[in-house]
Amino acid sequence: MKVPGFRFAGISAGIKGRGIPDLALIVCDRLAAAFGVFTTNRVKAAPVVVSLKNIRNGRARAVIVNSGNANACTGRRGLRDSQAMARVTARALGVPEREVLVCSTGKIGVPLPIDRILSRIPAAVRDLSPGGLLRAARAILTTDRGVKDASLRGQIGGRRFTVVGFAKGAGMIEPHMATMLAFVLTDLNLNGAAGRTIFRRAVDETFNRITVDGDVSTNDTALLLANGLAGNRPFRAASPAGREFSRALKEVMGRLAFQMVADGEGATKVVEVVVRGARSDSEARRIAYTVANSQLVRTSFFGEDPNWGRLLAAAGRSGATLDPDRVDISYDGVRVARGGVSTGRRGEGEAKKAMRKQAFRVILDLHRGRGTFSILTSDLSVAYVRLNADYRT
Amino acid sequence: MKVPGFRFAGISAGIKGRGIPDLALIVCDRLAAAFGVFTTNRVKAAPVVVSLKNIRNGRARAVIVNSGNANACTGRRGLRDSQAMARVTARALGVPEREVLVCSTGKIGVPLPIDRILSRIPAAVRDLSPGGLLRAARAILTTDRGVKDASLRGQIGGRRFTVVGFAKGAGMIEPHMATMLAFVLTDLNLNGAAGRTIFRRAVDETFNRITVDGDVSTNDTALLLANGLAGNRPFRAASPAGREFSRALKEVMGRLAFQMVADGEGATKVVEVVVRGARSDSEARRIAYTVANSQLVRTSFFGEDPNWGRLLAAAGRSGATLDPDRVDISYDGVRVARGGVSTGRRGEGEAKKAMRKQAFRVILDLHRGRGTFSILTSDLSVAYVRLNADYRT
Repeated sequence: MKVPGFRFAGISAGIKGRGIPDLALIVCDRLAAAFGVFTTNRVKAAPVVVSLKNIRNGRARAVIVNSGNANACTGRRGLRDSQAMARVTARALGVPEREVLVCSTGKIGVPLPIDRILSRIPAAVRDLSPGGLLRAARAILTTDRGVKDASLRGQIGGRRFTVVGFAKGAGMIEPHMATMLAFVLTDLNLNGAAGRTIFRRAVDETFNRITVDGDVSTNDTALLLANGLAGNRPFRAASPAGREFSRALKEVMGRLAFQMVADGEGATKVVEVVVRGARSDSEARRIAYTVANSQLVRTSFFGEDPNWGRLLAAAGRSGATLDPDRVDISYDGVRVARGGVSTGRRGEGEAKKAMRKQAFRVILDLHRGRGTFSILTSDLSVAYVRLNADYRT
Repeated sequence: MKVPGFRFAGISAGIKGRGIPDLALIVCDRLAAAFGVFTTNRVKAAPVVVSLKNIRNGRARAVIVNSGNANACTGRRGLRDSQAMARVTARALGVPEREVLVCSTGKIGVPLPIDRILSRIPAAVRDLSPGGLLRAARAILTTDRGVKDASLRGQIGGRRFTVVGFAKGAGMIEPHMATMLAFVLTDLNLNGAAGRTIFRRAVDETFNRITVDGDVSTNDTALLLANGLAGNRPFRAASPAGREFSRALKEVMGRLAFQMVADGEGATKVVEVVVRGARSDSEARRIAYTVANSQLVRTSFFGEDPNWGRLLAAAGRSGATLDPDRVDISYDGVRVARGGVSTGRRGEGEAKKAMRKQAFRVILDLHRGRGTFSILTSDLSVAYVRLNADYRT
């Protein structure tokens, strides 16, 4: 999995333990257009603060990432440490410090072992190679069960292009936080306005439509870097080329999003919660989020119990208006409630069978309008609690 | 546990199984002033719809309650069934139908075995006795581990009075819903305005300050009945008598609230989450709710892990403004974070010890103003998931 003009490294800096990969580096050989979406949490980790500042100029040459420690809730020292990571990486690469972005994921409230990290940055630079993506993808994981990556090739304006992405999951346990990091890289030539619009929209329709436990990390970061090597002419978001790129981006990011939910903490199932027939998309969104985050709903997914009343009750407390007597509910096409009332035992029996699958879809149809929204969630399992209740060591 | 002028019954109507108590009746020998607070869920169960209508006249003679079936999401038939419960109870007692309130708790989406219930109402009437409160309290339970009750005697205007209450818990599993029912009975003479104000306020400061999983039942109901036998002169809410009654009511309801959290689904601990130093009480409330409902926070309580970063991160995503660099966090008086930064390993070690207790308090001090709010929550345990994932049988 390669993308022209990008090199990757993934090595151990000893943050997680001897020899375990925990330091990743992405380098753009040419200055790339850079776009970022960051956590909305008011408590922002130091690397987020630094990246938010450095990405303002819209260009980047490198991203340095460590796992094993989130550098969050670490005060002024944390900020100095993230700045040092950017500075030392910039020097080792011979680029300006403001063109380096920084990410961290892992334990919070504990200072970074910054000396160890800084001393290993030259080794990361030596490790850089165009084929190193999987090594980098491995080095950003915390307790993810595996690497999350996706890629796609296409054509725009007669020019071939590549989009690759890698990510670490939502709802990971080692950091005792749910941190999502995603890096999407392309050789397309993207102007600022189109890049911002298309990336923001793609984030809204992929990463912002997954939920594991409703908790929002202090470190969430999604970055898009575009180095222009494909040689295409710049395009507007609302052009055929813009739509083509948007499709490619959503495809890659959608696949990363699915992998993140499937590898959520203790997840045994991925469930798409679809709300239809709301009075507006925003009402549909509100209901979909409330249903997808409901502990009672998510434990019923784990138990393969088509307990549709929990879905309806969650919808009812979402704050959106609805008429319970008009709501239909189905599990993977099996209708269990019509007009807010059970369709009978046979429906529930069939729905129970549908729920045995590793991925299925529930649909709530409100029959009030045309508003619609869908979101991916996982089930809430015994393993989730076990993982999150473990003492830090 | 008695209160003058009230009689109670608790019998089996065979809803849950032969001989298991599941039908309760409360009768006021004198017409009582009645006050109710009901679920805010837009999906309201049929008994809530009927009680909301009947309580409008501000008086009641009886409350008929069944457990084992919530009569929720049961459409028009459900409504007819709840009305029939009120009507048949009224006839058996010789009182107007509109003076009977109805509650149900249990499975949702399944029609009531209404014939069985109606045929047992005369037996419930025969079972009535002034000492029957515990029998009634037992008959309203679903999978609560035990009866929840509280009582208190006081004096107002030279007249002795009694307040008794019984409840079933928040976050119970048999109904696959979190239904809370609470009945508070007093022999005080209460006028409408004072009763409404004082009861509403007491609900806000007790039942509305507990949370088990953030799910809001379709059936939640809290009722206050006051029959006036104490012979006191009516009082205003803002009078010494009003304040005295308010204290008594909060004491009884607070004890019921604590029992509900302690007996929450799979709960092993009761934790009071206190937010101080917010810019306003409503900001403090917002943060307290987000922290108390956070799955990551609640699993850390279960794991006895003073993972304060999760509390701070939950506060950060609550939507309230805060300056993370000023936040102090403590567990039962042990400070683990000062100015948003760890106080060190020793503090965390002591906090871990404090968390071994069955009940403890965490305090987040934002140092931004005088806003404060506190809420009771339980931990999120492996047992919670097990209980809620079980198939319905």
